[in-house]
Amino acid sequence: MDRVPAVSSAFASDNAAPAHPKALEAILAANHGTIPSYGSDPITQRAADRIKETFASPAADVLFTFTGTGANIIALASAVRPWHEILCSDVAHALLDEAGGPVLVSGASLLALPSDDGIIDPALLDRRITRRGDVHHSQPRIVTITQSTENGRVWQPDAIAEFVDHAHDLDLLVHVDGARVANAIAALGVPPAQAVGDADIVTIGGTKNGMLFGDAILVRRPEHFTGIEFVQKQIGHLASKHRYVSAQFDAMLADGAWLRAAAHANAMAARLSAGITSLGLHLSSPTEANEVFVDLPFEALTAVREHFAVHAPDPHKPAVRFVCSWATTDDDVDAALRALSEAQDRII
Amino acid sequence: MDRVPAVSSAFASDNAAPAHPKALEAILAANHGTIPSYGSDPITQRAADRIKETFASPAADVLFTFTGTGANIIALASAVRPWHEILCSDVAHALLDEAGGPVLVSGASLLALPSDDGIIDPALLDRRITRRGDVHHSQPRIVTITQSTENGRVWQPDAIAEFVDHAHDLDLLVHVDGARVANAIAALGVPPAQAVGDADIVTIGGTKNGMLFGDAILVRRPEHFTGIEFVQKQIGHLASKHRYVSAQFDAMLADGAWLRAAAHANAMAARLSAGITSLGLHLSSPTEANEVFVDLPFEALTAVREHFAVHAPDPHKPAVRFVCSWATTDDDVDAALRALSEAQDRII
Amino acid sequence: MDRVPAVSSAFASDNAAPAHPKALEAILAANHGTIPSYGSDPITQRAADRIKETFASPAADVLFTFTGTGANIIALASAVRPWHEILCSDVAHALLDEAGGPVLVSGASLLALPSDDGIIDPALLDRRITRRGDVHHSQPRIVTITQSTENGRVWQPDAIAEFVDHAHDLDLLVHVDGARVANAIAALGVPPAQAVGDADIVTIGGTKNGMLFGDAILVRRPEHFTGIEFVQKQIGHLASKHRYVSAQFDAMLADGAWLRAAAHANAMAARLSAGITSLGLHLSSPTEANEVFVDLPFEALTAVREHFAVHAPDPHKPAVRFVCSWATTDDDVDAALRALSEAQDRII
Amino acid sequence: MDRVPAVSSAFASDNAAPAHPKALEAILAANHGTIPSYGSDPITQRAADRIKETFASPAADVLFTFTGTGANIIALASAVRPWHEILCSDVAHALLDEAGGPVLVSGASLLALPSDDGIIDPALLDRRITRRGDVHHSQPRIVTITQSTENGRVWQPDAIAEFVDHAHDLDLLVHVDGARVANAIAALGVPPAQAVGDADIVTIGGTKNGMLFGDAILVRRPEHFTGIEFVQKQIGHLASKHRYVSAQFDAMLADGAWLRAAAHANAMAARLSAGITSLGLHLSSPTEANEVFVDLPFEALTAVREHFAVHAPDPHKPAVRFVCSWATTDDDVDAALRALSEAQDRII
Repeated sequence: MDRVPAVSSAFASDNAAPAHPKALEAILAANHGTIPSYGSDPITQRAADRIKETFASPAADVLFTFTGTGANIIALASAVRPWHEILCSDVAHALLDEAGGPVLVSGASLLALPSDDGIIDPALLDRRITRRGDVHHSQPRIVTITQSTENGRVWQPDAIAEFVDHAHDLDLLVHVDGARVANAIAALGVPPAQAVGDADIVTIGGTKNGMLFGDAILVRRPEHFTGIEFVQKQIGHLASKHRYVSAQFDAMLADGAWLRAAAHANAMAARLSAGITSLGLHLSSPTEANEVFVDLPFEALTAVREHFAVHAPDPHKPAVRFVCSWATTDDDVDAALRALSEAQDRII
Repeated sequence: MDRVPAVSSAFASDNAAPAHPKALEAILAANHGTIPSYGSDPITQRAADRIKETFASPAADVLFTFTGTGANIIALASAVRPWHEILCSDVAHALLDEAGGPVLVSGASLLALPSDDGIIDPALLDRRITRRGDVHHSQPRIVTITQSTENGRVWQPDAIAEFVDHAHDLDLLVHVDGARVANAIAALGVPPAQAVGDADIVTIGGTKNGMLFGDAILVRRPEHFTGIEFVQKQIGHLASKHRYVSAQFDAMLADGAWLRAAAHANAMAARLSAGITSLGLHLSSPTEANEVFVDLPFEALTAVREHFAVHAPDPHKPAVRFVCSWATTDDDVDAALRALSEAQDRII
Repeated sequence: MDRVPAVSSAFASDNAAPAHPKALEAILAANHGTIPSYGSDPITQRAADRIKETFASPAADVLFTFTGTGANIIALASAVRPWHEILCSDVAHALLDEAGGPVLVSGASLLALPSDDGIIDPALLDRRITRRGDVHHSQPRIVTITQSTENGRVWQPDAIAEFVDHAHDLDLLVHVDGARVANAIAALGVPPAQAVGDADIVTIGGTKNGMLFGDAILVRRPEHFTGIEFVQKQIGHLASKHRYVSAQFDAMLADGAWLRAAAHANAMAARLSAGITSLGLHLSSPTEANEVFVDLPFEALTAVREHFAVHAPDPHKPAVRFVCSWATTDDDVDAALRALSEAQDRII
Repeated sequence: MDRVPAVSSAFASDNAAPAHPKALEAILAANHGTIPSYGSDPITQRAADRIKETFASPAADVLFTFTGTGANIIALASAVRPWHEILCSDVAHALLDEAGGPVLVSGASLLALPSDDGIIDPALLDRRITRRGDVHHSQPRIVTITQSTENGRVWQPDAIAEFVDHAHDLDLLVHVDGARVANAIAALGVPPAQAVGDADIVTIGGTKNGMLFGDAILVRRPEHFTGIEFVQKQIGHLASKHRYVSAQFDAMLADGAWLRAAAHANAMAARLSAGITSLGLHLSSPTEANEVFVDLPFEALTAVREHFAVHAPDPHKPAVRFVCSWATTDDDVDAALRALSEAQDRII
């Protein structure tokens, strides 16, 4: 009874969750016999076709990677040469949480634009293209946005369509970092293609959606990403036993499990978010997908952390993040609300 | 009945094989509850400890990656700065089969030394260090060797010990690419540490040994690989759901399954090799681990390829490669020998 | 008489000016006989000693480069590994006018901090070091500031001393981009060392000061810039005929010509600045060195450009730049003021 | 009288020589008034036109750099993406004497082909293109050859034409490193265009030819070197005061001074070479341009070095290099022969 209660990882990230049963079953089902490696196998072909169909992109190419960071690097590095500039939001994963990988592998510069929780005003792009052709300055070439964003926001279909179209008007390519695109699609309730606009390349997160590992890259305009398969190899993301990545995608997408998993995570986040508001706490960002951000004074954060590992993305801001996954339960949410309530009592 | 017989991938590579039951069981066993991501979990801790113990390296650090290419890049790139030179053999995977990834990520030059099927004469290193301190020339910093080699040869314990010591005498670090180190250890029948000499860093292949995916890096002299964990992140090889990599290592090493799997592959290769010799064909490299290289005229190769996908590493040489895995059966070997015999008949 | 008057480059930049007579004389004087190349010559030795003495840095190393961009790249790239972050101001030359060279050559990320015309509040550094040791994030390693700044401002000795000390307290190295450091020193009237604080590395501009070409790098803490001479070679800035770079530095520093040249440029800028204010125009930045920034509506800019090539650094801001050099004359200033006055008339 | 005689740099390299009077005069003549920087000036335009005319390449682009290493890096890096392979000879300057700069800046791999003193058998290229389209392997894209070679050999017009044509047949671009192309042209006595075949890009050495500094890049097929002007900027080789580079080229080419300078250097080398043969010493490479390579036992080398700084390119070979320049005199040659004769006496 005296034992210190273990700290739960339930809300630390959606990647702290176990693998979804569908993903595991798919791996077991794929584990028969020798088959060609490096993606030249029928399971991978089927998974690629399914992704293209799901995103209404019949002419696209599909690549599979192990991680979202890998997928982002491959997508961005294949689009640019070292004198190009990659634009992103000021909270972009590619900027803040990939240890400079996209810059190292591409050689190009990465420039942050101000944003509203990751939602970028398309008019800001106009300011960035004024030095086109000026040999002294990096040349903007691609802009990466995240759906749903790192702060748990969802680009509305109209907004993302407008953003992508505006970028195209300015001769900029668009990459969508879709590490949590399933959560966005589930939240919007629209066909997947509408959730990513007319983006030229989309990374589709499997890991955070419930797979053991694995993200996909949907290359919708391959002519702008020449050599992308070489970049994939150059950073060691060309899986030899490709079937174990692709089979998970095939299975999760086949019967809509990926969107049900995402919808559950979103619902848990909505429930947590409502409870937090009821406690009188302040959400630092609106809850639109599977992440909840709440302002917590440092003392309260410390108290919460006795029970839950949680991420405070910016140590200079009081925002604390709770992430829900396919595996989050009502009990988990209730426990989190209890911990928050106790933390609140302690500081008042 | 007229149906063209399917081409088998049985000997295409050890990565065409399905996953070893132990590896799959370990994943299933690890799939419970939320746990810390990115390697801060007890399964990963246990696997790291087991690897250190297995290689008698208590003071080492252990990292896990998804692929051998990823592991090689991380090991090499963390050892060098862009004005350094990485030495390798003329058949090294890092030179020929990683699409220039080690060069791109490190910025350093990669220089091939002549070798006997990947076995490098240590005296050749002396020739490479004559321009130390010369600002016009890249500075040799690390040499990478492969155990067992890309041509299926095994460094004998004395030979690798001498090589590593000589490199150290010349102030060169040593990396062992151990994508198939289990095959070498099984072939030699020595403790794992003896199979890699006093190398400073060793990558330990899990994928080719039977795992779904996963290689490990044993950093025995961490002071020479500062920031290695950042390189791992920078190329997207820091698994969020680390347990699914590490659990496989833990299970395969725990009861010796990794060496039994390798010994089986070696035995199948020996059987195939003997059969080939009996057919009067010529081995282009001695069979010492799980790979068999046989000289085949182009017509014979074409005939064999009607039944088996096989790799001919150098299109200017007649050598054809057959790789055995934990899953290769006697029947597979017999079928291969039949195909070779038929091919032989056809050309004579 | 009807002939269209040529557009003058007098204020386009200090690098539009011809070479200072002292610089040319030094080259002629150095042009005798064969001497060792790549800097192993007595002229280079003498120039290096003079720079060290001038900046009160007896233990420093000195390198010579052809350009300021080259010098900045070499200084920054030798300080970092690819997972490091380089901090700079939002108007830094390294950020805006080197086409991403520092990023490409170093592999590291470059992050802009808000500034007052290039003067950075040291407290902003505190916000940047909160993720030290976090493997997901680039690690801040060095901050580069410019003296005098790209907007013509001068760091006061107290301010730069405080900034550098604060950076050191945070375990950050400091680079001073001194492309126009002579103008700052002349403006401040202090010993050179006081104009750069306790910076770890300083690039000293020769080109903008009046030389044909040539910048120097003063490496005050060589232990943090290991291999810097290799980076110099790797981007082709190790001059074979070193004497033609170093002789200019030796001559310009020997008798104070560099500071007299800078003081003259500053005086011309002050005169132009005063005249502009008298015209009722608004300076967009205070004039503290040899650059004058004035707000001009687009129509006025067009009118001025009939007579003078001038740079408008940010097309979204009305600021137009006039740069004075050692060669600027009173007549040049008068002509500029006339052109501005006419332009003003035209728009009113 | 007791004074130790100074060691002469007369044969250390052609870059140990002083600047040619024509080059200096051109700089003095160009030093009037303010003119546009970064190459937008009439002197640079004239020099570019003259180079294009000289090499019969009216549709080419011309860039100016400070050094040959810079020129090589810019030419090669603009031709490739990181998954490409650059081919060169086993004695190439780009391989051995640029500290890995081309690899760092391009991200691509550099692969050495065996050669006869830098002359590569075109048939060797066939072996290098067998893995086209194989994602595991770097893709050969450009081959760089040197005219005259690093070992003082000259490609004959027929040989270089055949080599370039064969490379083109294999879909390889060709770069000619012409750091000493003037010596080759003078030796061959053919129009410059014949000395470089149908190469796609040529770097033209000014520095070794007698200029203070400066090399040019003749981009004959600009469509294959997109963005080359950005690479030039990214490594700090876009001279602000461009006229001081271009004026030298304009003047040296205008009246044939560049070829007279080269012819003189070649003649001095021929005289030295003949004298060496008369002494009974063995030339390690035939003397075809301005470099003489002689086999000298270590003791003899030591004796020669009491009088002359000379380069022994490969410490494992006895070859010692003597380089003649526009400034080498008959007396220099006689003194070298005396020193060699004495050295010879001492060892016999």
